[in-house]
Amino acid sequence: MPQLSASQIEKALQNLPDWELAGETIRKTFVFEDFVAAMGFVIEVAQLAEEVGHHPDIDIRYNRVVLALTTHDVGGVTERDVRLAREIEEM
Amino acid sequence: MPQLSASQIEKALQNLPDWELAGETIRKTFVFEDFVAAMGFVIEVAQLAEEVGHHPDIDIRYNRVVLALTTHDVGGVTERDVRLAREIEEM
Repeated sequence: MPQLSASQIEKALQNLPDWELAGETIRKTFVFEDFVAAMGFVIEVAQLAEEVGHHPDIDIRYNRVVLALTTHDVGGVTERDVRLAREIEEM
Repeated sequence: MPQLSASQIEKALQNLPDWELAGETIRKTFVFEDFVAAMGFVIEVAQLAEEVGHHPDIDIRYNRVVLALTTHDVGGVTERDVRLAREIEEM
């Protein structure tokens, strides 16, 4: 799976609100009512990640969850990351 | 709840294998067989955290989970963090 170019990523992010390019990842911070709601989201993301075999980096800070997607094999963002971000948005 | 001194933290860490002082936190990296096992651990930690009303920072990297404990109110490590670390070790 080829690494996307900066302009390809930029284009993809136009349809992914609040996702941003950060180094070799695309990243978004999700804010919830409290820790329990944040964990509920994390569990849903984890189930989806396991189903599609692609796992975001997940940082939990009480009611805030940062997801970062990258394709380690190619050292950058691929269509796989964009697809998973879309699926997370559709959850 | 008072902030612990460096020597108090050092003493507490002697009974907390692989926990280390990192800035204003005590921190440990847990390594698991795979993502599913890591998430199982995170869910257990989250339940414990919610029960005791004290929530670690949790970073998930596939099969690795980093927990960092601090007491934000005092800007450092307190007995509360040490207690939660002990409870996590006893899980």
